[in-house]
Amino acid sequence: MKGKLFVLSGPSGVGKGTVRAALLKEYSDINYSVSATTRAKREGEVHGREYFFVSVEEFQEMIKNDELLEWAKYCGNYYGTPRKYVEEKLKAGEDIILEIEIQGAEQIRKKFPDGVFIFLAPPSLNELRLRIQKRGTEDETKISERLETAKIEMEKMYNYDYVIINDVVENAVEKLKSIIIAERCRIENYIGLKEGDFNDG
Amino acid sequence: MKGKLFVLSGPSGVGKGTVRAALLKEYSDINYSVSATTRAKREGEVHGREYFFVSVEEFQEMIKNDELLEWAKYCGNYYGTPRKYVEEKLKAGEDIILEIEIQGAEQIRKKFPDGVFIFLAPPSLNELRLRIQKRGTEDETKISERLETAKIEMEKMYNYDYVIINDVVENAVEKLKSIIIAERCRIENYIGLKEGDFNDG
Repeated sequence: MKGKLFVLSGPSGVGKGTVRAALLKEYSDINYSVSATTRAKREGEVHGREYFFVSVEEFQEMIKNDELLEWAKYCGNYYGTPRKYVEEKLKAGEDIILEIEIQGAEQIRKKFPDGVFIFLAPPSLNELRLRIQKRGTEDETKISERLETAKIEMEKMYNYDYVIINDVVENAVEKLKSIIIAERCRIENYIGLKEGDFNDG
Repeated sequence: MKGKLFVLSGPSGVGKGTVRAALLKEYSDINYSVSATTRAKREGEVHGREYFFVSVEEFQEMIKNDELLEWAKYCGNYYGTPRKYVEEKLKAGEDIILEIEIQGAEQIRKKFPDGVFIFLAPPSLNELRLRIQKRGTEDETKISERLETAKIEMEKMYNYDYVIINDVVENAVEKLKSIIIAERCRIENYIGLKEGDFNDG
């Protein structure tokens, strides 16, 4: 059986990173694809864990060499998904989860139409504003810019397979884990498997 | 939002009752529709909990009065789903789970094409034989009869939405619960909801 690709996306500030990190802590039965970015490292972040932090020059080199499955410029920074890791895992029959911005998810959808696309939504845009402000990594202009983008991004929700309202992190994690487990039970995964699995012959 | 109908089915002896009971013990956020049957009550079973145990005459009266959503005769006994409880819960926006035989599930599929159909499968037919023998409620002729039926029933699997291989009960319960939670996150549930849920206007 080929591995399944799960894509967690949603507007900036909704808490994708928190939910994804909490999932991986609780549930180790999935591989995480670490993205590359040119944005500044935040406190507590580790190179190769949250992101591969690279320079603009390095990022452009990766684009040039076709080493990225998708990439996007978002609020002045580049973000992208290294191709090799994802392709290797899927080929080996292992599942993988990406946590990426909306623009990147759209590119992935085109390349992996069978992927499972999960939209993490804020309870409201007001709540989203509070979360971005609370994070305290951006000035007011950038916050407004992110919120304007978020409003547009919310409309992309209907292109996704699943929606998780991120009200409480634990609930969101349980839903994400449930989606992964349920998707593995879908009948499509069993079509074409040899009959011997269900016979005593 | 209208309630969702989940249907757990699978060959006789696969452990539907055990998995369903374990689910309800762990997870109370779903209603269970108790079936009616004319089969003899087994040790430990309670009227109104596992089944409504009725006489053949009472069952035929229910059929006549259109009180059953589906019914089937299986290995000499009648089994059926009382209509009223299911329709009331769904209308009230509550989810409901049925645990029924394959024939009954096919009738439900016709009436509720949007239902979520889950097939509980044995790891193998050999394992299924052992389980039926271990239960010790049937003689050899009936066991052979059930196994022959099971072989035919296994081919219905591909009409279902999900498959759960019932290897270990706890694993099967986790999968069943995950399917319920994941189905509630599907985007289709959010289409047509008022935009206000995602706006701060």
